[in-house]
Amino acid sequence: MDSTLLIGLIAASLTTFAFLPQSIRAIKTKHTKDLSLITLIMLEIGVIVWIIYGALISDIPLLSANIISFVFMTITLYLKVKYG
Amino acid sequence: MDSTLLIGLIAASLTTFAFLPQSIRAIKTKHTKDLSLITLIMLEIGVIVWIIYGALISDIPLLSANIISFVFMTITLYLKVKYG
Repeated sequence: MDSTLLIGLIAASLTTFAFLPQSIRAIKTKHTKDLSLITLIMLEIGVIVWIIYGALISDIPLLSANIISFVFMTITLYLKVKYG
Repeated sequence: MDSTLLIGLIAASLTTFAFLPQSIRAIKTKHTKDLSLITLIMLEIGVIVWIIYGALISDIPLLSANIISFVFMTITLYLKVKYG
């Protein structure tokens, strides 16, 4: 694997899995007050639009990264709506 | 502009500017307790690695989107470290 591709994969992994610890924190603490609802809605819609774009251009890495992000984003947004 | 490109630009705009309202909220409330530090560090490093990747493949949209994200991520991370 060439080093440029490796750097791209590292970047994608970090941003794709970034909301996993946030989901875990919100599940554990049941507190989401400091999270911006607008930020979470923008990210949720953004990820959905990325999935549509990934499907339109048939880009498997873009599609799979955003489907994974969608799971963590949806959990975090659900908890924000639940706990306020 | 074709519709696929437009969809890509909408996706990029949403995820690029998503941390602007989070930065504003943290500045206003001075509270960041519910934000996951691990999430913010992963996003900050992720964005930096995306910038390196964007520079390596000379992709101007990728570079510019991540430089903008870097500003909002850095503000949010700084406030998280400051307010705990």
